[in-house]
Amino acid sequence: MTDWGALAAERLNRLAQVSEDGPGVTRLPFTPQHRQAVALLTEWMEEAGLRAHLDDAGTLVGRHEGRAGAGTFYLGSHQDSVREGGAYDGIMGVVLPILAMRKLNEAGRLPSCSVEVLAFADEEGVRWPTALIGSRALAGSFDPAVLEMRDRDGVPLRAAIEAFGLDPGRIAAVQRPRAAALGFLETHIEQGPVLQEKAQPLGIVTAICGIERHQITLTGETGHAGTLPMASRRDALVGAAEIVSEVNRHARATEDLRATVGEIHVSPNVVNAVPREVRMTVELRSPVDATREAAGEHLHGFAQRVALASGLMLTAEKTYAQPAQPCDRGFADRLAEVIAEQGHAPLRLASGATHDASAMADLCPIAMLFVRCRDGISHTPQEYAAPEDLGAAVDVLSAFLERPFG
Amino acid sequence: MTDWGALAAERLNRLAQVSEDGPGVTRLPFTPQHRQAVALLTEWMEEAGLRAHLDDAGTLVGRHEGRAGAGTFYLGSHQDSVREGGAYDGIMGVVLPILAMRKLNEAGRLPSCSVEVLAFADEEGVRWPTALIGSRALAGSFDPAVLEMRDRDGVPLRAAIEAFGLDPGRIAAVQRPRAAALGFLETHIEQGPVLQEKAQPLGIVTAICGIERHQITLTGETGHAGTLPMASRRDALVGAAEIVSEVNRHARATEDLRATVGEIHVSPNVVNAVPREVRMTVELRSPVDATREAAGEHLHGFAQRVALASGLMLTAEKTYAQPAQPCDRGFADRLAEVIAEQGHAPLRLASGATHDASAMADLCPIAMLFVRCRDGISHTPQEYAAPEDLGAAVDVLSAFLERPFG
Repeated sequence: MTDWGALAAERLNRLAQVSEDGPGVTRLPFTPQHRQAVALLTEWMEEAGLRAHLDDAGTLVGRHEGRAGAGTFYLGSHQDSVREGGAYDGIMGVVLPILAMRKLNEAGRLPSCSVEVLAFADEEGVRWPTALIGSRALAGSFDPAVLEMRDRDGVPLRAAIEAFGLDPGRIAAVQRPRAAALGFLETHIEQGPVLQEKAQPLGIVTAICGIERHQITLTGETGHAGTLPMASRRDALVGAAEIVSEVNRHARATEDLRATVGEIHVSPNVVNAVPREVRMTVELRSPVDATREAAGEHLHGFAQRVALASGLMLTAEKTYAQPAQPCDRGFADRLAEVIAEQGHAPLRLASGATHDASAMADLCPIAMLFVRCRDGISHTPQEYAAPEDLGAAVDVLSAFLERPFG
Repeated sequence: MTDWGALAAERLNRLAQVSEDGPGVTRLPFTPQHRQAVALLTEWMEEAGLRAHLDDAGTLVGRHEGRAGAGTFYLGSHQDSVREGGAYDGIMGVVLPILAMRKLNEAGRLPSCSVEVLAFADEEGVRWPTALIGSRALAGSFDPAVLEMRDRDGVPLRAAIEAFGLDPGRIAAVQRPRAAALGFLETHIEQGPVLQEKAQPLGIVTAICGIERHQITLTGETGHAGTLPMASRRDALVGAAEIVSEVNRHARATEDLRATVGEIHVSPNVVNAVPREVRMTVELRSPVDATREAAGEHLHGFAQRVALASGLMLTAEKTYAQPAQPCDRGFADRLAEVIAEQGHAPLRLASGATHDASAMADLCPIAMLFVRCRDGISHTPQEYAAPEDLGAAVDVLSAFLERPFG
């Protein structure tokens, strides 16, 4: 009998070699490395009985043709990595469904509907300042304006797609008919520590968190750290510290809220000068939009009170907002059942990160299966998921697909 | 009758032209600008009846020869500026005593002791990573090892002094005999807002604050701002914020203490990553050493408690300490009397900044007269002191010198 977990690990190791030079994995879209990954995945898709082709958005599609009129179920994730990333983020969500389809094929238990396993070219948005190219194309939300964006060598996305042998003018035709789209299931490492803490290999995603980002700038007055009396100070960093503390306190006290001050810039930033200006970011994430929005309002109100009390000038701007994306309850329950059948706890959790599923939600109901990763780390060469957990995911995916849809 | 304030202002404006190109005043030691400043000051010293010479540490000395055995009283400050600094810091403390001596000379009321007006080459330490070259030479605390330090063009201090026509090998001979040194009075802009707030032109310095600097590093763990639950975080910036708040709170609650977190560096410092490491500086200043030392101990204790409670690794290092330098009580009282005679309040305050007087304290009792400066700002082209205040200082200096010493 095939050890699906060991085979998945071997294939992920092989794909990890398909990288630019340097530590970890760097595999950007529409590059020679992308081309190599497509070649390997095509081979494995065909071995699994799938018919493979590359669409004009660079998505490799491996299709099982089901009964006419039964619709299509989608699985997949992205082939690209961040720079110096790991061997699992994204690509694992392509390798595992291929193996699940092979397992079903070998057992003669293929689903009656059509199934497509998708390897999206770009989710991370590392090469161009856009992301989710392939999933947006399928869902019909791809904005052709991004074709003019240039990478750091000045190459427009349009030219890179053409050089890959594809026709960017035909991306609109990639869109799938909504009526026939049964659902999309993305398998992804958790990128967080919850499954490890709960000692479970797999988790069922309830929703993809909404995100908002705020840019906060506090401006006071600098002065000599020796000569400016404390009572005369308008120290921007002292005001910023209050906001950092409150953002943290509020998130810890609020269910389903994560809040982070990740970036902070201080001027003049020298040992013997009172800080004049602090620019900082606040990122809020929650699977519950109302929670996230209330946190944003609380942040602005708190920052205003700090500025007023400290004689600081405040600008607070919400620079980005993306609503939460709930996962389909029916698919989540179906995942819970097959996970329980495999002898694991059907643990449910939110996804703090955005995924291809976020874009696919415009096309059809979505589901996500999380796989435990070591210490919750991701986007580094140390990223790791155990072969047994990969095997458990293949078993769950095949059992999930085996049940009739609709 | 001469308007001493207007004349002082005119001379300071003229000296402000003696600068490298660019905004404000940039006049570094042992440069053509230094040479030009020496020429102007020499002319004005001679006009005041002083005999001028340049010593081997680059200090321009203007001497009034008093009665043999009556000792020497010193006045002065530094000719150099920071880069893009103002027209008053340092150089004003040379221009005003020259005018005070001229006023006494013209009135036939020169003191019976000898008087030297000093224009030190370097106090700011901008060109080489040392400072107080001239005052240390006079006080006998000059370390010859600094002669090998190089400026950013690679020029050693030794070579710059030689190129200026001086003999660095004879700096030790610049040291003055302690027994004959009656005292040193430095006149300087306040570089703080207290005199402006109190609506007084002049202030009497009680002590030059001691300083200590601490380097605090907090190390936690980074992680994805979306996927890392709040309860699992070891966020270095959250810990740092607590320290910034406490440093500020403690200093505001403690008499005679100024405390500043001036510099902060966060890694990785990106919007969607939990901060892994924060490096920050804490600077403490007080005219009372025990207050400063207690604040340093409080800081280390507090940082340890934060680190322990937050799961952060802490390194806290005192990187610099310089004790407070009390000013001579007798000279301060004498300044208070002559200031009161001129119709101003004899306001006493500490100096938060270090000055040439700090080094001169190794030679003799010191005194400092502060002159009000606009909005307390310094080290910028906007630095400003009003002509009337300069005039008030000339009057006080001449009245101070007129009274017999000892």
